[in-house]
Amino acid sequence: MRISELSERTGVSVPTIKYYIREGLLPRGAPTASNQADYSERHVERLRLIRILREVAGLPVATIGEVLAALDQPGAAAMGEHVATAVGSLARSHGSASPEAVAAVEELVEARGWDVDPTSGGFRDLAAALTGLEEHWGDHSPETLQGYAAVAERLAEMEIPDGWQPGSAEALTYAVLGTILFEPVILALRRMAHENRHKRLVRSAASS
Amino acid sequence: MRISELSERTGVSVPTIKYYIREGLLPRGAPTASNQADYSERHVERLRLIRILREVAGLPVATIGEVLAALDQPGAAAMGEHVATAVGSLARSHGSASPEAVAAVEELVEARGWDVDPTSGGFRDLAAALTGLEEHWGDHSPETLQGYAAVAERLAEMEIPDGWQPGSAEALTYAVLGTILFEPVILALRRMAHENRHKRLVRSAASS
Repeated sequence: MRISELSERTGVSVPTIKYYIREGLLPRGAPTASNQADYSERHVERLRLIRILREVAGLPVATIGEVLAALDQPGAAAMGEHVATAVGSLARSHGSASPEAVAAVEELVEARGWDVDPTSGGFRDLAAALTGLEEHWGDHSPETLQGYAAVAERLAEMEIPDGWQPGSAEALTYAVLGTILFEPVILALRRMAHENRHKRLVRSAASS
Repeated sequence: MRISELSERTGVSVPTIKYYIREGLLPRGAPTASNQADYSERHVERLRLIRILREVAGLPVATIGEVLAALDQPGAAAMGEHVATAVGSLARSHGSASPEAVAAVEELVEARGWDVDPTSGGFRDLAAALTGLEEHWGDHSPETLQGYAAVAERLAEMEIPDGWQPGSAEALTYAVLGTILFEPVILALRRMAHENRHKRLVRSAASS
């Protein structure tokens, strides 16, 4: 297909598509006789993924490049590591973490027996988030963190079924997309559950 | 204290403090004989809250104004509603939601027996998030949503203790801060739990 059709199908403008090609996020189309480029379904899929990474996850173009590079690595044997790398490169926070926060995360990983790389996005994000808590909130007790970690384990078991195996590039892409697309769902549901619980506790206090 | 000390104690620059005062986010200081303004501990607290709402939650100034207005409403009797309003005004998404997504949220609220206002931030954010899922992912089954809702209920029970009552403005402020400051903690832990589970499943598939 021509670039104009690629643009229509993905909702990404032609200048933006050209920008992604220049930045190496999207492969060039195959040259045609008429000095144009021919784009494939693979371009459509890749462009949709880039759009989600930009618009939903709000990632900068450089980080999107890292995610795509991790997804593009061949070799199904080490796929588990690649998922971790791909999801890990979704890290949002690039702020510095306090030594206390890093120590708290290390302790938590040890206590839960998690196989998590200290260089992964989740690890670094958590250390940065705890640093923010220390600054703005005060205490984050190990017990509080353990409670949240147990909820996170339950989420992971629910979201990644027992038989899961990264058999294909699509499986990897879905792992990354699932991580991103369900984040706003989880946060919105938590706020709704908070609203519900606040109202109930206030009502039950008023009636007792 | 003078504005320079207020700036030092909160890490917010003097021009930014003046901007917040002009925008009505921060009350003016009390005028002094020397034609300066005197700022109190209340200014320090309010300014720290504004900083978190901007830097951690990434809220626009207009939304911060709404959150602060909700926090400032007097009357402890209806406090539960005010928490909901204050937390609700944290809504991130202002995109439009599809009628299918709104119907799915209504169905979920009904099924869980939640007391949640359809105008609240959580409700609107969820409808917007489901609209994003429909566009980029495909299916969101009611069963999937129910699973996430159960996790959200567990979070709310863990985070808001049984005896909770909004006795003061501080309790309200803490409810808003807790909602914001623990969001990155939850998302980072989920990514870590995903990384751990991906690695384990791949290893157990390889060894069997």
